[in-house]
Amino acid sequence: MANRIRLGMVGGGNDAFIGGVHRIAARLDDRYELVAGALSSTPEKAQASGEALGLPRIYSDFKEMAIREARLKTGIEAVAIVTPNHVHYAAAREFLKRGIHVICDKPLTSTLADAKKLVKAAEASDALFVLTHNYTGYPMVRQARDMIAGGAIGKVRVVQVEYPQDWLTQDETFKQAEWRTDPARSGAGGSTGDIGTHAHNLARFVTGLEVESLAADLEAFVPGRPVDDNGHVLLRFHGGAKGMLWCSQVAPGNENALRIRVYGETGGLEWAQEDPNYLWHTPFGEPKRLITRNGVGAGDAATRMSRIPAGHPEGYFEAFANIYSEAAEAIIAHRNGTAVDSAVLYPTVMDGLRGVEFVDACVRSSARNAAWVKL
Amino acid sequence: MANRIRLGMVGGGNDAFIGGVHRIAARLDDRYELVAGALSSTPEKAQASGEALGLPRIYSDFKEMAIREARLKTGIEAVAIVTPNHVHYAAAREFLKRGIHVICDKPLTSTLADAKKLVKAAEASDALFVLTHNYTGYPMVRQARDMIAGGAIGKVRVVQVEYPQDWLTQDETFKQAEWRTDPARSGAGGSTGDIGTHAHNLARFVTGLEVESLAADLEAFVPGRPVDDNGHVLLRFHGGAKGMLWCSQVAPGNENALRIRVYGETGGLEWAQEDPNYLWHTPFGEPKRLITRNGVGAGDAATRMSRIPAGHPEGYFEAFANIYSEAAEAIIAHRNGTAVDSAVLYPTVMDGLRGVEFVDACVRSSARNAAWVKL
Amino acid sequence: MANRIRLGMVGGGNDAFIGGVHRIAARLDDRYELVAGALSSTPEKAQASGEALGLPRIYSDFKEMAIREARLKTGIEAVAIVTPNHVHYAAAREFLKRGIHVICDKPLTSTLADAKKLVKAAEASDALFVLTHNYTGYPMVRQARDMIAGGAIGKVRVVQVEYPQDWLTQDETFKQAEWRTDPARSGAGGSTGDIGTHAHNLARFVTGLEVESLAADLEAFVPGRPVDDNGHVLLRFHGGAKGMLWCSQVAPGNENALRIRVYGETGGLEWAQEDPNYLWHTPFGEPKRLITRNGVGAGDAATRMSRIPAGHPEGYFEAFANIYSEAAEAIIAHRNGTAVDSAVLYPTVMDGLRGVEFVDACVRSSARNAAWVKL
Amino acid sequence: MANRIRLGMVGGGNDAFIGGVHRIAARLDDRYELVAGALSSTPEKAQASGEALGLPRIYSDFKEMAIREARLKTGIEAVAIVTPNHVHYAAAREFLKRGIHVICDKPLTSTLADAKKLVKAAEASDALFVLTHNYTGYPMVRQARDMIAGGAIGKVRVVQVEYPQDWLTQDETFKQAEWRTDPARSGAGGSTGDIGTHAHNLARFVTGLEVESLAADLEAFVPGRPVDDNGHVLLRFHGGAKGMLWCSQVAPGNENALRIRVYGETGGLEWAQEDPNYLWHTPFGEPKRLITRNGVGAGDAATRMSRIPAGHPEGYFEAFANIYSEAAEAIIAHRNGTAVDSAVLYPTVMDGLRGVEFVDACVRSSARNAAWVKL
Repeated sequence: MANRIRLGMVGGGNDAFIGGVHRIAARLDDRYELVAGALSSTPEKAQASGEALGLPRIYSDFKEMAIREARLKTGIEAVAIVTPNHVHYAAAREFLKRGIHVICDKPLTSTLADAKKLVKAAEASDALFVLTHNYTGYPMVRQARDMIAGGAIGKVRVVQVEYPQDWLTQDETFKQAEWRTDPARSGAGGSTGDIGTHAHNLARFVTGLEVESLAADLEAFVPGRPVDDNGHVLLRFHGGAKGMLWCSQVAPGNENALRIRVYGETGGLEWAQEDPNYLWHTPFGEPKRLITRNGVGAGDAATRMSRIPAGHPEGYFEAFANIYSEAAEAIIAHRNGTAVDSAVLYPTVMDGLRGVEFVDACVRSSARNAAWVKL
Repeated sequence: MANRIRLGMVGGGNDAFIGGVHRIAARLDDRYELVAGALSSTPEKAQASGEALGLPRIYSDFKEMAIREARLKTGIEAVAIVTPNHVHYAAAREFLKRGIHVICDKPLTSTLADAKKLVKAAEASDALFVLTHNYTGYPMVRQARDMIAGGAIGKVRVVQVEYPQDWLTQDETFKQAEWRTDPARSGAGGSTGDIGTHAHNLARFVTGLEVESLAADLEAFVPGRPVDDNGHVLLRFHGGAKGMLWCSQVAPGNENALRIRVYGETGGLEWAQEDPNYLWHTPFGEPKRLITRNGVGAGDAATRMSRIPAGHPEGYFEAFANIYSEAAEAIIAHRNGTAVDSAVLYPTVMDGLRGVEFVDACVRSSARNAAWVKL
Repeated sequence: MANRIRLGMVGGGNDAFIGGVHRIAARLDDRYELVAGALSSTPEKAQASGEALGLPRIYSDFKEMAIREARLKTGIEAVAIVTPNHVHYAAAREFLKRGIHVICDKPLTSTLADAKKLVKAAEASDALFVLTHNYTGYPMVRQARDMIAGGAIGKVRVVQVEYPQDWLTQDETFKQAEWRTDPARSGAGGSTGDIGTHAHNLARFVTGLEVESLAADLEAFVPGRPVDDNGHVLLRFHGGAKGMLWCSQVAPGNENALRIRVYGETGGLEWAQEDPNYLWHTPFGEPKRLITRNGVGAGDAATRMSRIPAGHPEGYFEAFANIYSEAAEAIIAHRNGTAVDSAVLYPTVMDGLRGVEFVDACVRSSARNAAWVKL
Repeated sequence: MANRIRLGMVGGGNDAFIGGVHRIAARLDDRYELVAGALSSTPEKAQASGEALGLPRIYSDFKEMAIREARLKTGIEAVAIVTPNHVHYAAAREFLKRGIHVICDKPLTSTLADAKKLVKAAEASDALFVLTHNYTGYPMVRQARDMIAGGAIGKVRVVQVEYPQDWLTQDETFKQAEWRTDPARSGAGGSTGDIGTHAHNLARFVTGLEVESLAADLEAFVPGRPVDDNGHVLLRFHGGAKGMLWCSQVAPGNENALRIRVYGETGGLEWAQEDPNYLWHTPFGEPKRLITRNGVGAGDAATRMSRIPAGHPEGYFEAFANIYSEAAEAIIAHRNGTAVDSAVLYPTVMDGLRGVEFVDACVRSSARNAAWVKL
């Protein structure tokens, strides 16, 4: 397919979980072709991982990759950055300044200072910056956003969002736990950075509201853990809505139980990531309604993100692929010098900044005994 | 049945919701006989309501009723107080000081001052004081408490409890809404007093933990409402556990969605009032288990509160009746001068005080911008 | 309460499960007063059981009871018959012929011959005959029936009804299993008689349709069991609808999982006994709707059977009590010589006959290799 | 990736639903490269569809494609056949006889005669034949099969399987409905062929049991429809198990509600396609357990079919891709002359024959008033 977008990847070598996810997401709708990679900061591993994937061009260093690819006539048009958080900024900068679009895993960076620099780098570049807050790619999340924007539940009053997991219930030593609980690589937030940001972003995305201030009570329940593994956060949104956010990695029985409930003056909505093909709509004074992905009741915002009829579940990969496909729409339009379809939506560097600000605010609030901190 | 406990009732006239519930609860297990009542503060209504129930002895005033019944050889042994909250103390006092057991609706009182006086009155009396925190009568709530006490989930870390409703989403004028949103009769808390106390009591009952301090962000979303209709509360428990409590009367789609989730070092438990015959147990590292009322996996604490085999649902009335039957056990033991079976459990005046303190703390915290308030 | 109906009971002595259920059901709404009983066919047990309940008049023989009570000025007006199935006819006859109303447990009789005789006895009597097909007392079952009658799903095409249990998965020797698997006392059907009749009756009640013919493949999976413990039945209804009925007592994980799904030309309905406060309505071409007991969307047929607001679950006892209260309406009207409210509904002797015919047809069909048998 | 399997496709042009699904499934795990196609029987459409996909080699005729590809040094190694059912045999034959592996959509053929010929063609060929009974690719279906084979529920007694849909509730004229309700192209079975075969295959796959005989009552509820839109089928399995199968396309509220429940002497299992990441296990005498895909409790049979941790749902495409990846394992082993890993499982031509026999038996049984027909 001649029009596939030429994609590179930084990070995502053998054993890395999220790199494989990005590759499947990029491949699913056949809009990308992975042609180059600097898959590890260890040269041998970068080489071996690149060969295992059959990559045409293998690099051991992301800067070298950026430089060389920018010089190629058919070098990469976009790069996926899937390293640990603390590398995001340095890597993204190299590509942005050479006009290569960046598709970056979340959270944006491990520090607020980096996040702000990255925003500047993105703003200074003609290239696009896409943050893979993948849950915003779920069709029924789009449906919820569209319904709220359209007034289906009236003015929003209450937002309850949570993301409990249980994989860090005990003191784990496996690789994933290792860098994700290291403040130097992951950031000052533990559960807040890793999953609280997802909850925060989902609340913003679905309601269209920004958090005005928050009060956070963070805790590391597992002795010796240097970052929080549980976060209880009170939220106040611009415009008067209030909410609660709970993130936890020590809640046994919860796998990836991201869930949002939004209540407005005339109705409510409820969505859960583990059963993503359903959206509850509860108009006040009427029976509850269960809207299904691509089923009756689902509107364009959901169906344009869906591939098969209702009742055949789409899941995590399809939602992730939706982010990649939205990015592809924007990249192709950029390539062609045309306008992007107004329906196209993807998280941007500003969403990333908001997320890092959220983590920073949580950490600061908690350090001051859950005092209110403005965002 | 010669041994039935002779019961009186204060409040609960025609049109009052909760009075009828108490009567069914008292009748269900055939341990009580309702023989006297002062069912309304309006004499005509008291008379009419008493006649409608075929009560042998009808009073228009609870004090008169207390005085006269105390003199009768076969006067009432216990009284159910089901008036609006602000009357609880005055009524209970009259019966307690005459040695008549009190079964009182919750919250204990509308003010903290009254609550403290009522504690003293109860302590000064030989009579029993039972508070109908009815949700503690659900078999699977007993099961949860028993499992936690027995170590099934290890030391408790996180408690998520919530009680959303939607009946006050709009500005209602019907009777229930009327006194329940009047601070003079209901107390300073709106949703916090009416249902937040249920959530708070459930958390205490199930975990065996007391709240050490809280930070509450209360709101009245419906313009002009004099009390909160939504409460967001951060909890810190003695011993280190943390939690969140959400109560709301403006969450469309929620009827009486009281729900508790407790996570400990080795497992979790989850229970929801609207589907009360189920209890999820999630031991860390094992598949989730669904325990059913009177089914395999349910222990004595649950089965002694249950009347029929698993799969035939018991509901709200049966749970409420369980409180009455527990009270009956205690009353009969008191009558006989024997010890109460150690399995018997019912909420006491101290539980009531804790509830009123909770509301008071929420209101004070919220007035100080959700500052931490110790309980 | 002067107007309570004076009730007697036959069967239901100590240890009998269903007798206690009937007593709670009769007591719940305070329409009956239990004043006489012949609670066991063993005189000593009848006496002991009667005393335990504090019954004013205790008999050791149902015939004696019928004769004597009929002569009393304030003798029983109605009798609850809760014996094993094979005694129903003989007992009911004695009361019916003396003008005493009969409230009889299901199935109607253990043999088709008895059922037909009982129909004649009921028709010959001025007294009422009420069969406690208790599941028809659930508010949302009433709602379903009312919606179908009102055309909410169009002409019915498909009826899927099932009642799986698991308590006879192994070769049980406890009392309940004992008489319920003895053809002489229970009837020729095992699971078909005990629970298949409930499924059959529910299908008839909800749809308003009668089975025209059936093909049944019955099995006793537990070796040595003299009656079926699993029944697979194809149904054809008058008017062209078709269905399947499954009853089983050997389906591990199922407690009392009675469930019905009905599909018509324009929509569907689904209800499950274990979660009885919910009714799914699936109008074709619209999102699924969840109607709750006493919630928005529930109509008069349901709310008149309901005591408390939606979200506070009512269960098995309340449904059973609804049958008793419907019977009370009819008995009081009979007493007063007035017409019964047209909304009042209860299963009759003809429903009982249909149930026994169903079991008979299942047994005959299965004996002929699941050949079609007309009803 | 040099080792990708070179794949062709027959059928699946623009507008065809299932062709796109196969392409995504083949692409997801990056084991195939689509290099040739005869995507439509209409030459212009074949050309346009091939160009839209950027196919290197476009054919207007499957026979021509088979002949030419077989001659190429790097011609296709495998072909996906995704035409209407009546073309399967003719197309598959051409590739099989030239040693090209066939991955064929189900049902195998539209007639039993064709199915038998196709079995012979497959047996006569050295090439592999894979039937995409895609639901067998779901990890929790594998888990269920593995548990039953391992004795987790004891000897199987009862199998309840169903596949209701609602898309043909009314008289539809859209394309999908058009050929799927035309006996000449789809086969004599309507719902039985289209989805009943899925239910039948799932029952066989999960239990490891073959149907010995069946009695089917088929119906076309929509007037004028030439094939059944609802099937009620009694099943008897070799070895003594019994079951029911229900398939329907006129059950409003059901999207693709394929569900199987299996009960054995010591436990049960339940799985539903619309929520495929869950498997209920109900060991008799223990609480129900919910096993999740890749979660604790899931064994190798499930986890080897899974890509991401539990709690991130995988869906329809991933299950479909699992069939393709299993096929890839077998094809690569064939290419290398090595043995296939014993864990690899995919539906074969014999499974396809069983499915066509099932439809044929249903149609014959129903024509004889649901008489038993042996398979």
